[in-house]
Amino acid sequence: MSFETDPRLLAHSVALAPMPLCDVRLQDDGRFAWLVLIPRVVGATELDDLSRDQRIALMDDVTRAAEMVRDLGRAMGRPVEKLNVAALGNVTAQLHVHVVGRRRDDPLWPDPIWGRGEALRLGEAELARLARGLEPSAGV
Amino acid sequence: MSFETDPRLLAHSVALAPMPLCDVRLQDDGRFAWLVLIPRVVGATELDDLSRDQRIALMDDVTRAAEMVRDLGRAMGRPVEKLNVAALGNVTAQLHVHVVGRRRDDPLWPDPIWGRGEALRLGEAELARLARGLEPSAGV
Repeated sequence: MSFETDPRLLAHSVALAPMPLCDVRLQDDGRFAWLVLIPRVVGATELDDLSRDQRIALMDDVTRAAEMVRDLGRAMGRPVEKLNVAALGNVTAQLHVHVVGRRRDDPLWPDPIWGRGEALRLGEAELARLARGLEPSAGV
Repeated sequence: MSFETDPRLLAHSVALAPMPLCDVRLQDDGRFAWLVLIPRVVGATELDDLSRDQRIALMDDVTRAAEMVRDLGRAMGRPVEKLNVAALGNVTAQLHVHVVGRRRDDPLWPDPIWGRGEALRLGEAELARLARGLEPSAGV
């Protein structure tokens, strides 16, 4: 069985450069600096479906994503004040990790973001601009 | 500065045996099999406040907690169907990781559990029974 990404994880997001374990998606939602990491492991739904080496690689990818989310917050003009990192999967079971930048003035603070409110679409041009800023070559 | 736990992380929970990096609290909420892990690292609020070795130790503790949450769900008569693992910290900034067992018939499914609904207190005797079942000597 080859690795496939659930289409629900592809919607309203764009791909960034892949990380060692994970595919990375920039979410199209101007409310938050928000990346989703998807480990390229067939059939994984829980963290402990990964081997220990894969879990360590995931933690390394999440740590890199945390830096990127802070860069993204600055590029959106809304520097991140708190990170929210979560592997939930109640709606889409395929293992994925949200790395979200939060601010005290964001529309859902201090509540979690999932399942609440409506996304604020950035539009293709702005999404492309933000994605370019996160490319490894961008030196952010 | 010595390590201290934010009192809000101590409320409505009981201590279980400490893990290599983290203190572990069993939450007093009959709606969910729910543990909170608190890395014993002074001043940490974000995952990347930890060293890489500490992050790996955290992932190991989370993996062990995932097994314990499944044991807990069985002991509560509500076997876990999906794990939710999250480091949020919007209300209590001190770094802590929730490991929560979810079921399709739980009162908040598929939404996240934080900031919604009222806890269902288990009572001291039931909380103590569940905590005993999670002791390393219990062989669960």
